[in-house]
This record gives sequence, C-alpha cells and structure tokens, in this order.
Amino acid sequence: MPKLSIILLGAGTIGASWSTLFLSHNAKVTVFDPSKQALSKVKPYIKNSWLGLKKLDPSLNNIPWQQLKLSQDLTTICDAPDWVQENAPDRLKLKQNLLQEAENYLPTDVPIASSTTALMATDIQTGMAFPERFLVAHPFNPPHLIPLVEVVAGKKTAPELTERAKNFYQLFGKEVVIPKREAIGHIANRLNAALYREVVNMVATGIASVEDIDRAMVHSLGLRWAFLGPNLVYHLGGGEGGYAQYLDHLGSSQEVRWNDLGEVSLASDIKQKLIDGLEETLEGRSIEMLRKERDDALIKLLNLKNAVRQE
Amino acid sequence: MPKLSIILLGAGTIGASWSTLFLSHNAKVTVFDPSKQALSKVKPYIKNSWLGLKKLDPSLNNIPWQQLKLSQDLTTICDAPDWVQENAPDRLKLKQNLLQEAENYLPTDVPIASSTTALMATDIQTGMAFPERFLVAHPFNPPHLIPLVEVVAGKKTAPELTERAKNFYQLFGKEVVIPKREAIGHIANRLNAALYREVVNMVATGIASVEDIDRAMVHSLGLRWAFLGPNLVYHLGGGEGGYAQYLDHLGSSQEVRWNDLGEVSLASDIKQKLIDGLEETLEGRSIEMLRKERDDALIKLLNLKNAVRQE
Repeated sequence: MPKLSIILLGAGTIGASWSTLFLSHNAKVTVFDPSKQALSKVKPYIKNSWLGLKKLDPSLNNIPWQQLKLSQDLTTICDAPDWVQENAPDRLKLKQNLLQEAENYLPTDVPIASSTTALMATDIQTGMAFPERFLVAHPFNPPHLIPLVEVVAGKKTAPELTERAKNFYQLFGKEVVIPKREAIGHIANRLNAALYREVVNMVATGIASVEDIDRAMVHSLGLRWAFLGPNLVYHLGGGEGGYAQYLDHLGSSQEVRWNDLGEVSLASDIKQKLIDGLEETLEGRSIEMLRKERDDALIKLLNLKNAVRQE
Repeated sequence: MPKLSIILLGAGTIGASWSTLFLSHNAKVTVFDPSKQALSKVKPYIKNSWLGLKKLDPSLNNIPWQQLKLSQDLTTICDAPDWVQENAPDRLKLKQNLLQEAENYLPTDVPIASSTTALMATDIQTGMAFPERFLVAHPFNPPHLIPLVEVVAGKKTAPELTERAKNFYQLFGKEVVIPKREAIGHIANRLNAALYREVVNMVATGIASVEDIDRAMVHSLGLRWAFLGPNLVYHLGGGEGGYAQYLDHLGSSQEVRWNDLGEVSLASDIKQKLIDGLEETLEGRSIEMLRKERDDALIKLLNLKNAVRQE
C-alpha cells in the first residue's frame, strides 16, 4: 500500500506511543506540539518502545527516523495527510480550540480522530468547520502495545467514517470495537470505573487492603479476563447449560452482591488511604521499574496470545 | 513433610478440582458425596486435569490413585484427617446440615473450610458443635489452576485458624488473601460483581453488544490485570507523580463515570438480551471446546507468570 501520512496533534505519552505504532507500520508521522520540551521526549520514547516491538516481531526494521517529523508549527505541517490523531490533554475547550485551529490548515476531507478518554465526540466536534470528519478513536496506554481502539461517532460524524476508521486502525493491527452510542468512558473505561469504585469502597470501608485487592485480581479474575471476556466467563460458569443456566441459577446471587456494593466518593481521607495502601505494596519499586515490568509482561502475554491464536 | 490427609465434602467440579490439586502435592484425599453419580465423575476429572498440571510441572508424578478414596458414607471416612474442605452446593441450610452431620464423626480439632462463594462464615458456622474450627476458604474455578484462595473467619472462628489456613493453602502453592472482615462476595467476587453490573447495564441500555464488551476486556483491561492489580495500574497511569497524581488529576473523571454507571436488575428480558448476545459471539464453539481453550490458555499464562517471576 502507498505510504500513509499521519499527523499527531499532541506529543505526550499517548502521542509518542501512537508514533511508535504508526512508524512500525512504515507510515510517515508528523508530531505537532506547542511545547519544545514535549517534542524532545518523543524520540527517546520511540527508541525505547521499539525494543519492545522488536520482541513482538523480530523481523521489524530499524526505526525509519527520516519518516518522523517533529514540529511546533501547525501552519506548515498540514500538507495532505491521510489521517489526523489528536492526543492533547483531555480538556474540552483545549481540544476544541486545537481542532478549530488545525482545520484552518488541513484539507477539508481529512479525518480527525481524538484519543480522548473522558470526553464525548459530539462535544468535541461542536464548533468545528467540518465536524463530519471527526470521531473518537480511544486507545489504551500504551497504544503501541495494547490492541484495543474504541471508535465512537458523534452526532455530526459522517456515517461512513466509523467503518473507515475501523479499517484504518486494523491496518496497524488494532482490535476495534464500536459502541452503539456515545457514553461517558466508552466501553472499557466504564467497566474499569465500575470495578474501581468497588476497589475504593473496600479500602474506604475496611473490607480489604490495597495490596490484597491487587493480589486478588492478578491471581484470579485477571488471569481469565486476559483471554475471556466477562460474558464468556459466566457462560463457562454455568455448567452444561451455559450462560442461560448461569443467569437462572446464579443471577440472583449477582443481584445480592450488587445490592451490597458501595457508592463512595474520592474524598481526601479516602485518597490518602489508597495512597498509603499502595505505598505498602510497592516495596521500594520505582515507577520506572514497574513500567518496565508492565511492558515486558505485556509483550510476553501478547506473544503468548498470538501463539495461541495460531494453533 | 508427613503425608496430609484431607477430606472433601462434595464431589462437584470444585471438589474434583481440589482433589487434583491435593493429590498433585501427594496428600491422601477422601471425597464424600451422597450421590454415586457425582462421585463417578471425580476420577475422569482428575485424569483430565492432571494433563494440565503436567504442563505446569513436567516433573509431576503419575496420579497416586491409591491415595484417593471415594465414599458415600460419612460415618466411615472421618478417621483422623488433617483438613476438611467443604464444597457442597452453595445453599446455607444444606451446608449447615452437612457440617453438623460431619461433626458427629470428626475429631473435634480438625479444621473445616468452606469453598462457599456467596455465603458468610458466621452464618454457616451457626449451629456447629465446634464453630471455632470453621472458616471460609474460597477458591476460583478451577482451583487446581487458579492460584487465589480467600480465607475469611466468622465471628466464632478461633483467631489462630486464619493464619493456619493461610499456611495450609500455601503448602499447595496457593496465593492467599485475607479480607479484613466478612463481606458478601469476599474480595474478588465483589470486584467481579461491580464490573458485571456495568456489563449488564451496557447491554440493557444499548451502549454496546455482548461481543464488543468481551472483546474490549480481552484486548485492554484483562491484559494489564493479569499482571497488575487496579491500584498499581492507576499508579502507573499517574505519570511521574504516581497514584497521588492520578487521584488528584483524574480522580474527578472517575467520579463522573461512577455517576453515569447503571443500576440494573436481571429481569427476564435483560437475561434474554445477554443470552442472545452471547450466542452471536460463540460462532458454534461448544462449552467443552471453550473450557479446553480456557484451561490451555490459563496453563500457558501461569507458566509465563512463573517464568517472569524467576527472572
């Protein structure tokens, strides 16, 4: 296929990780950020994360640095890109302003996708000159490793753009899901938030320690959810009758638990309990070390899943 | 160590899986069940699951069948066991009756642990002759593979029994967590229920399909949670400031999501949506095939985690 040209708006961690992914599939990547300091971190990030990608695909070429451009100047970079991925800080006004500014220099038909976690496509596209070219394409950190992209159209998004976005991200090996409608947190972060609320509740009300909650996850639920989603897990929990049997026999026990779950807020004393609890579990491991552990483990798990798929 | 002798009350899937685990660590195992049919399934289960354990530990011996005894008669099996693990159906009255009956034949100081998912230790031990010997030790299915055991004392449990139980399960390679107090669902199934409530909500209110929810899980959150618990994940989501920075900068976005989560019930039309949605994702895969896929994947993941730990 012809070399794709992609503009990234925002050079934070997500932008740098997208850059890694797109370069690894031989795209031309231009990263815009008003901050010189932010731009200065992109190359070191790519260099480091490329080592991880090499472990996933030993045949990967060296980094095509000549295909990467870093720029503080929006006016000069917008020459005929195929795709724009926006990864600015997750604040509505900031994103709206950035996109309206970028549209002054972009061809009118280039799609623009936002990596937003917390905002809605319909809100972001308000005020755009060509809102039909806009949608949300939410990755998970780090996008060069985690396969999921959630593609969500806003009210003014062109109907065909969703499918086009799906095809685009699949070119880069991504697993695309498309929520049926806009919702705060899309799909995965709604699940995440629901679970995390109970994490906070258990710490706040003294049911369990931060450490034991994290250990419970990695030694039980997390092992299954790496391979099977929650519906399939309960399908297997229903014996020979599957999901229908599970829901008939054990659905009511879910409802009993639902009624006992907590509704908490992140008040400052609760935040402190969480922070203190985490401190105990770290045993001196730095964020740097943990991040490396996470990425190494992710790469091994992705390799394992690829191998399982090919059996 | 001297050969431990363990009685299992109940020969369902959990009992058969515990049997596999205990035999693989060279214990003597006696399985009681009033149903001849239930007992007849134990040996085939062990035979089959032993193949999986062999993949985790190639040096594992052949199945010591002579150390396994199956019995429909409580009165004759209770001679000096070291431990009793109860895995009867998860109904309070049934468990209470079974334990009160078993106590007639057991030495008074033998610990009895219940595998209950949904019941509380304090409720089950009501009416026991020696309630201080009783606690909950909740495994995850299948216990011969999933490492977690949640150990929970009831109000009448002897204070030292919790630690003794922890040591006991650790002998068999289990990862033990001890909730600080009794709560419906212990720790992991509270997390599970909280997340599942939002699964059901998203299907019920048309935010996402069953298939996309399951795909979102296995391609994002599940990959991280296999290695890092939810607190550690957010610690890494906070940048250089860690968990404190995450909570300060993004805690409020969690609260926004919490306020948008649904509170649903498992009404029959919603159950049907879940069942129909799952059917579409199965693409003809039988429960048998899925179970084998799950166990094969679990074994590979556990091997991977063991290897990571030894690096």
